[in-house]
Amino acid sequence: MGRRADVAVITGGLGPTPDDRTAEAAARAAGVELEVNPQALASIQAFFDQRQRLFSESNRKQALLPRGAVCIPNPVGTAPGFILAIGRCKCFFLPGVPREMRHLLSEAVMPLLYRLAPNGKGAPQHLLITTFGLPEAAVGEELSDFTAAFPRITWGLRAVFPEIHIRLRLPADVPGQGAPAAADAVAWIRRRLGARLLSPAGKSMSEVVGDLLRQRGATVAVAESCTGGLVAHLLTDVPGSSDYFLFSGVTYANSAKIQVLGVSSQTIARYGAVHEDTARQMAEGARRVAGADFGLSTTGIAGPDGGTPGKPVGTVCIGIADGSVSEGRRLQFTFGDRRLNKKIFAVTALDLLRRKLLDTDDG
Amino acid sequence: MGRRADVAVITGGLGPTPDDRTAEAAARAAGVELEVNPQALASIQAFFDQRQRLFSESNRKQALLPRGAVCIPNPVGTAPGFILAIGRCKCFFLPGVPREMRHLLSEAVMPLLYRLAPNGKGAPQHLLITTFGLPEAAVGEELSDFTAAFPRITWGLRAVFPEIHIRLRLPADVPGQGAPAAADAVAWIRRRLGARLLSPAGKSMSEVVGDLLRQRGATVAVAESCTGGLVAHLLTDVPGSSDYFLFSGVTYANSAKIQVLGVSSQTIARYGAVHEDTARQMAEGARRVAGADFGLSTTGIAGPDGGTPGKPVGTVCIGIADGSVSEGRRLQFTFGDRRLNKKIFAVTALDLLRRKLLDTDDG
Repeated sequence: MGRRADVAVITGGLGPTPDDRTAEAAARAAGVELEVNPQALASIQAFFDQRQRLFSESNRKQALLPRGAVCIPNPVGTAPGFILAIGRCKCFFLPGVPREMRHLLSEAVMPLLYRLAPNGKGAPQHLLITTFGLPEAAVGEELSDFTAAFPRITWGLRAVFPEIHIRLRLPADVPGQGAPAAADAVAWIRRRLGARLLSPAGKSMSEVVGDLLRQRGATVAVAESCTGGLVAHLLTDVPGSSDYFLFSGVTYANSAKIQVLGVSSQTIARYGAVHEDTARQMAEGARRVAGADFGLSTTGIAGPDGGTPGKPVGTVCIGIADGSVSEGRRLQFTFGDRRLNKKIFAVTALDLLRRKLLDTDDG
Repeated sequence: MGRRADVAVITGGLGPTPDDRTAEAAARAAGVELEVNPQALASIQAFFDQRQRLFSESNRKQALLPRGAVCIPNPVGTAPGFILAIGRCKCFFLPGVPREMRHLLSEAVMPLLYRLAPNGKGAPQHLLITTFGLPEAAVGEELSDFTAAFPRITWGLRAVFPEIHIRLRLPADVPGQGAPAAADAVAWIRRRLGARLLSPAGKSMSEVVGDLLRQRGATVAVAESCTGGLVAHLLTDVPGSSDYFLFSGVTYANSAKIQVLGVSSQTIARYGAVHEDTARQMAEGARRVAGADFGLSTTGIAGPDGGTPGKPVGTVCIGIADGSVSEGRRLQFTFGDRRLNKKIFAVTALDLLRRKLLDTDDG
């Protein structure tokens, strides 16, 4: 390694347990001993002190770094990273826990790498644009002539089910030209995707819906059958969501749909739990019970069992109510997997609320 | 690559969009042309036919493979993998979508690699043991003399927050000796961890709780404040959970706690929403509303805001009711992150139900 590369980034194996041997291996590769690194010890102790957690003896092992290593303090976990030269290669050792690794990579490693880069142009600007409603291939087709319009901007797609994320990379080498080009590129993409563009600031569906509710001073209540609490979970993952999220009734049992939400037992007896009218009444019930401005509901068949020829796995009815009008829609998805179905059902319900808040059905 | 390794596994870049260039790069490295691979085309068409989805022109691109490549059909996605010799290296190209990659890796690639291995001993046996209730470092300390007891079994730990997973790898080279050694090793670990061992079959907390409820023919209803639907979401991720999960009232607003669950407004006025007695009444209310055998509840402060000196972020009260007795407990966690707090609160609530179902409080 020390001969083939100038820089290496290594993750994992910095934990407190005996099977974590990265520091040991790095020391051996560099031909040095392990020793207690004072800065690493201080970083670990600060992490524990701040959380009033007991410092375990095995956590002390995480301060044993190869002699000559420079500690990268870790404010979000117990394992500090470190930088060590092995041969002519500058090696960055990071923890393997994804959120700790990401934090140290973006806060400590990437800024240093951009400074070390021979052309010294500084960091390029990255833009994350979230979209919902088209499969990855179709987004790619919509963007097929983007490069002709913006030759200096490179782009890529990533499926973060069920959203499709567009990443733009704007070069940093022309001072002052980054910002307008970014705005133009976003406007170009918005013209192509319409309301399927969620956020040019990388926000998720539930963040976008939360922003719209807060802007309008409106509240929402939810009634969930097939999504089993996921709509509420997505909404409440956003800090401050108690400003607009009041209630979700996760009514798996029909008796709960009838008793908690006031759905008509005749409707369920005649049409079944998975029906546009059941969904509509669930949305009305959630709104009424919680005294919310909007009611949103899901009832469907996530699978793997429960499908019928008329209502196969992947069928979902979504209800939405705002006090003056309520409606139920039926949609059919074909992912055939329980977890994927729960996700696409939940995000599609949030999308219908988003479009209602935007007052748009285009795209 | 073709000179340094016998086998390479490459993931990603097999999608339908223009930025997916792996097949093109592989063809160039092997010095061959791209051509429509009939088996790949059939795999893609089968995927679309089965789901009654429209075959997009850009999906046809995914059937363009380097000449001489052997297709690995992909039953769970649109991108088939392929095997191509580059120099003396056998290269496995897999899609980058994690669930598709994992499927093809375990179903197609690993069995082939074990057959190709020079010693030809066949696949080792892997065991995944899930645990909850001890941090990774403490599990490591409990297992520090495992290797002395079972020298032929290698082990490792992985934090899948908030569970800690123990992976055992038993060699395959002594016929008939794998199974008894695995049972002995699990028994040894169970003696060390007690009820903190969740499942020797790799099951998650919600799967274990679901199994226990089904074995006892019992049902559960949930009332959630701070977990925001996550307890219900975890329970309903398990296929067949409608057998035992009836209802969750996600009552973010105090008015919903009072109206839907019948929590006493005096209790909330006197002690606040985050209190043992509020939690106890929420669990009773959920149980009563849904007619369930067990009621389970959470109310706490997930953060980032809402903490007070007496009830800092990370405080959670969990209620549990079974018709003859109900109780509320207060716990304090120190992760300091909203999503982590929601997770640890939800899984801890499920753990209290699991221990009630097991009638154990040890470990």
